[in-house]
This record gives sequence, C-alpha cells and structure tokens, in this order.
Amino acid sequence: MPLCKAWTRGDSIAELSARLARAQSKMRDNMIDALLLTTEANVRYFTGYHSPFWHSPTRPWFVVVPSTGRPVAVIPTIGADAFNRNGFVDVVTWPAPRPEDDGISDLVQVLTNITRPSGQIGAELGPEMVVRMPIQDFDQLRMTLTHHNLTIVDAGLLLQQMRVIKSTSEIAKVEVACQAMSAAHREIPATIHAGMTEIQACKAIKRLFLLHGADDTPYVICRSGPVSYSDIIGHPTERILTPGDMLVVDSGCQVDGYFCDYNRNYAVDQPEQRVAAAYAAVSKATDAALKAVRPGAAFRDIYAAMSDAMGVQAEGGVGRMGHSVGLQLTEWPSIHPSETTLLEEGMVLAIEPSIPVEDGNGAFVVTEEEVVVTSDGYRLLSERAPSVIPVVQGNATCKV
Amino acid sequence: MPLCKAWTRGDSIAELSARLARAQSKMRDNMIDALLLTTEANVRYFTGYHSPFWHSPTRPWFVVVPSTGRPVAVIPTIGADAFNRNGFVDVVTWPAPRPEDDGISDLVQVLTNITRPSGQIGAELGPEMVVRMPIQDFDQLRMTLTHHNLTIVDAGLLLQQMRVIKSTSEIAKVEVACQAMSAAHREIPATIHAGMTEIQACKAIKRLFLLHGADDTPYVICRSGPVSYSDIIGHPTERILTPGDMLVVDSGCQVDGYFCDYNRNYAVDQPEQRVAAAYAAVSKATDAALKAVRPGAAFRDIYAAMSDAMGVQAEGGVGRMGHSVGLQLTEWPSIHPSETTLLEEGMVLAIEPSIPVEDGNGAFVVTEEEVVVTSDGYRLLSERAPSVIPVVQGNATCKV
Repeated sequence: MPLCKAWTRGDSIAELSARLARAQSKMRDNMIDALLLTTEANVRYFTGYHSPFWHSPTRPWFVVVPSTGRPVAVIPTIGADAFNRNGFVDVVTWPAPRPEDDGISDLVQVLTNITRPSGQIGAELGPEMVVRMPIQDFDQLRMTLTHHNLTIVDAGLLLQQMRVIKSTSEIAKVEVACQAMSAAHREIPATIHAGMTEIQACKAIKRLFLLHGADDTPYVICRSGPVSYSDIIGHPTERILTPGDMLVVDSGCQVDGYFCDYNRNYAVDQPEQRVAAAYAAVSKATDAALKAVRPGAAFRDIYAAMSDAMGVQAEGGVGRMGHSVGLQLTEWPSIHPSETTLLEEGMVLAIEPSIPVEDGNGAFVVTEEEVVVTSDGYRLLSERAPSVIPVVQGNATCKV
Repeated sequence: MPLCKAWTRGDSIAELSARLARAQSKMRDNMIDALLLTTEANVRYFTGYHSPFWHSPTRPWFVVVPSTGRPVAVIPTIGADAFNRNGFVDVVTWPAPRPEDDGISDLVQVLTNITRPSGQIGAELGPEMVVRMPIQDFDQLRMTLTHHNLTIVDAGLLLQQMRVIKSTSEIAKVEVACQAMSAAHREIPATIHAGMTEIQACKAIKRLFLLHGADDTPYVICRSGPVSYSDIIGHPTERILTPGDMLVVDSGCQVDGYFCDYNRNYAVDQPEQRVAAAYAAVSKATDAALKAVRPGAAFRDIYAAMSDAMGVQAEGGVGRMGHSVGLQLTEWPSIHPSETTLLEEGMVLAIEPSIPVEDGNGAFVVTEEEVVVTSDGYRLLSERAPSVIPVVQGNATCKV
C-alpha cells in the first residue's frame, strides 16, 4: 500500500474558502439565499469546528452560510472560543441553555439580515439528513420566517453533492485512518483468541487502533456467531469467542474527524467449508467491483458487478453493498441497484458485498474495502483483505 | 470510594417491563396513545437495543410504544437480528435504504393500528430533543396522521422525567464507568508530560480508560492553555503541553452505553497562584453543592450554593453548573438558576462549577464531580478531585 502523503490537521482557510465559494455558486444556481446548518458534519465542513461535544443534546448550534459573504455561527457562549479560533466565521452567541429562546431569536435576526433575492433558505431536510434542534423550535422558526417572506427548502442534495467529492487533504485523512487500522489488524491474530468475550476483544482492538494512529474509535463492531455472525451493527456483547465462530471487526476509526470504514473477518480456529465458500464469494465480488470502479461508472454498476459475481443469493439483508465515506461513517450515495449517480474522481467508497451462508439460518459473511476514485480507476485505501479467512487462536488458554 | 455492587450488562426483561409499565401509566395520565421514538437513548431505554450504528445517518429507526401492549420496532432489515434478540418487542422491517419510502408507510400502518382513545402521539419535539429522521418525512408523517385523526404532540418532558430517575442497575453502570476513569486518572501523572501534544495525551488517556474498564470513550476532552484553558468542548489539537499550562481532561466514558461525566485538572509543572486560587474556589463551590444535594432540594438551589460560595465571578461562560447524566452525556435538567425541578433519590448529577481566572483573558477553571442522590443526601461516584491541582511533569524528555 502506498504511504499517504504529508497531511495536516484541521481545515486550512484556503480549503474552507474553496468550499464556501463552491457552495455559494451552487446556492445561486439553486436560488438559495442561505444555508442553515445544524449538524456535526455540515458545520465542520463550512467552519472547521471539530468537537466531540455533539454528544451533548442540550444545546443547538446553527451556522448560516449566505450566498455572498462570510458564514455566521449562531452558537452557545460555551463555543465562542472554539468557533473564533480560525477567524473564518462571524460569531453570534447566546447563553445556552435558555429553553424559552434557545438561539431562535438570534438566528431569525441573522437570517433576515442577509441579502435575499430568492427568499429561500436551504436546510438539512432530505434523505439521510436530520435537523438537530427541537422540532418545536424548528416549527416556530419556519413560521416566523414565513412572516419575513422566507421559505425553508431542502438543501440536502446540494450538501451531499459537495461533500461526496473529497479534496486531497480530506483523502489524506481518510487514508491515515485506514493505515492505522491496517497496522492494527496485522496484530489482531496475536491479540484475540477463543475464550475472550466480544467486549474484551473489542476493547483490545480499540486500544490497538489508538496505538497505531486513530484519534477516535467511535464505531468498532465486534460481533461473532457459530458458523458465522447474523448481526453486524450491534454493540459487542459478553458472548465468548468459541472455536468454529466467525468474528467480524468493522470500523469506523477517525483521524481528524474523518472516518475510515472497512471490515475484517476472523475465524476462531478453522471456519466451516460453507463459510470459506461465502468468503470466497464476497472476495470475488470485491474483485468484480474494483474492476468496475472508475469515473463515469454509476453506483448501480458497482452493485451489479458484485451481484453478478455472486449470483442470485447476493446480499445478507444489509440493503445495499457499500456507500460513500467521509466526515460521516456512511455518506450518500449508496451502492444500490437504483442509484444512478456517476462516480467521479475524489469520491471515497466503501465496497461492501455480503452473502448468506448456505443453510446458515440468517448467518452471513460481509467484507469491506475502502477506495478512492482516481482519474482512471481507483486506489485502495485499506490493505486488501487476505484471500483466505485469517484465523485467531482457538485455544482459550494460550494467551492472556 | 465504595466498590459498586455486582452489575449485569444489558437491560433485563424485568427492567424493560418496569419502564414500559411506568411509561404507559404516564401516557394514560397525559392522554397519549403512543410514543414515537427515533433517537438512540430513548430507543435503548424502551427496547434494550444497544448499537454504535447510530453513527450512520443513512437509515431512520422507529419505535412505537403504545399505551397498552408491547412496543413495536419499525426498523431497517439490517437491525432485525439485534432487535429480535431479547424478544421484548414486536419487529416490523423494511429494506432500508429506500429513499422513496424509508419506513413511513410501515410506520403509519403501525400507528393507525394501535388503540387510540385520545388521538395523540407523543414524540421527541421539545427542549434537548431531536427527531432523528428527515424532516421532509416527518412533515409527511404528520400530514398523513392528521387524515387519520392523529396529532403528534410533545412527549419530551414525559421521557425526561422517566429517565432522570435511575434504577439500581443503571446507577451501577454509571458507577463502573466512573471507577474505570478514577483508576485511569491515578496513572495520568505518570503518563502525560510536557512536550506531548493534546492529541497524543488524549489518545494515551483513552487507552488508559479502556484498559481500566471503559467500554467506549466517545467524549474525552483534552484542552490546555497558558495560565489556563479557555475551551472545554473542542477536539484535542496539536498544541504542545508546556510548563505553566493547565490541562483539563473531561470525560465522557461509557460502560454498557451509560456515561460517566466528570473532569480533572492537571498543571504542567506548577500552576500560577491565581490559577490555584480559581481551583480552590471551584473546590469550595463543589463542597457547598454537595452539602445541598438531597431529595427535595431544587436544581437551582445547587446552583445557588455554588455561586454563593464563589461570589459574583461565578461561571466561565458555560451557561450552567452541572446537569443530569445517564444514557446521554448530558441530560435534563440543568443545574441552572431558573431550574425549579426537585432532586429525587436515584438521580445522577454532574456538579460542575466554573470560574474565570483573574485577569485571565477568557481563561477559566472548571471542575466536575458525579454523584447519585440517595434517600438522605448523596454518594460520590467519582473519586473526589484532589484539593490541590495535581501536577504532570514539565520536563519534556523525562518520559516516553
């Protein structure tokens, strides 16, 4: 795997300015006078604000991106220092929490003061989007803005279409996260063994991810099952890893707020032949997908390449076979049979074929690789999974 | 600190049944025919579903809690195995992502099939709440339900009033998380030193938290500054710890999905006298707050005890001096001058006084302890912070 180029933390003013210019051009094309942003990834993308404080539901955070001029952050006082740091945005604060008016009057003032030739405010209304503020307040905001001849419309697709093309700097961050995981995975067969619970294995793996360069480990899945696993999204449990199990480790590490997302399979002792066959099938599907990845191919073509390679049995109930990755673990668009969006250089994709295990009663096998679309094809960001399922020790007492 | 009692992972059927019965009684009192839940903490509380997959914004998840009978999970197929595991809820699935109808028709069918004497559906509309689904879909859902004579009303306070009183089992989980952090903090002076960046320090501390028993480390703040820090919510940066700095470590670890939340201050080498004075002031405020914690006191009384102890300078722009803690990092209610809610046995509180450093140009000191309210007072869950600021080595080369 090529080493990633030098990278720097944070979002430079040049990068933020380029995003702003691109957004403002799209806003004018779409007759949107301002974007109203409330969620972590979109706020980060336009301001550089990076914080784990989104875990606290108490306070809403608003960023207004006008179609001309500087973004305005309308935020709780507790965030003033962090938002003022890079000097890129104007900052308006209120002493939150203030439930009787949690920033709404401040926000209305900012929104009604912008230049507004079209009377439309774009917000996070559409698929895969959430408005992160109390709906009671959002309803009130919509009504108040109506009195000012302003209508809130969906800007979800505009935001998705911007964020799906990653800059060199963004790709570097995802790649560093992928490399941290790859280095950690090399040590997993010597770290994980039968007799550990999923929880114990997961904590050991998170420690390895951090040791090898991940900043954060928000999404590390360790699920197991006899024959194979039937769940790939649950928190690890106290289930004890047992010879004959399959274990899936799916992550979800971050570097500077950017996610990598790929998984690895481990057999505890030796896998059954039908499991090895399922693994071979998803490996073959991955090969087929990779051959199809290039600018101009459609997302549904990548799906078709995988389902053709696997035959009618394809997909273990996941609902798609991959997606975009970036500031969020999963981003638009999906690798789905109905997705006609075309691949472009700079997109970062998780390619994730799954297949049921024969007579497996819901057990399935899924594998996942991460790639960036280049001018003439793709470059792997994950170290490609072994062609045969790697094995962790089935002897419960051989390691601590 | 007393060792916590034996605890078990997950939510027992007895515990889930008790929550359901309590909710259904409150729903009937409030003329609410069903709760519609879409967010991690509320879905977990009523179903036991525990997953990091909430990081993926692609799919909405719905749980309907009727005022009589079993909860119904209306969820993407990918979650069927996890939701079916404990047998507590009925499960309806759709093959998400399906943007043209992402579960809405299934959800409407479930909501219109419940017994509905009052015609009101309670949802997460109010302060500190978010509806986690596209607002376009929520608007459509509201309109469709109107045609069925169903109105969506706010059930935020009902949910908050339930969740604020923790069961023995919930308190045990928070306490185990607090103990993991306490054990880790004892090792921090030997682990962190001048010359490290905030990022490096933060990763080392996360590894310690995991080693000592935390399952997850979603919220670990490491922010520093000369004299003292002026930000307590940002992601750690590449700022290098330097003699004369103060470092605040605020967390945010989880055990079985339950947060602990308390912070610790470290001086790099020796703090300035005015910083030591600010630390003494917040320690004194904590003493005053603890004396006031007992059933029947109001949240605003706890605030008043702290601000009286510190005088007019109290509070460094945080907006409150503490809050409830549980399935979320910060929960209702706040320790705020206007909060009249009364303390009850079983509430878990973070007591968090802050004060500006004299002539500190925005620098402040904040300390935080976590307690559970008992029948006659409180019990500390965090190991009380030292009365004098602990020091980490100012010699950059003394440790690796």
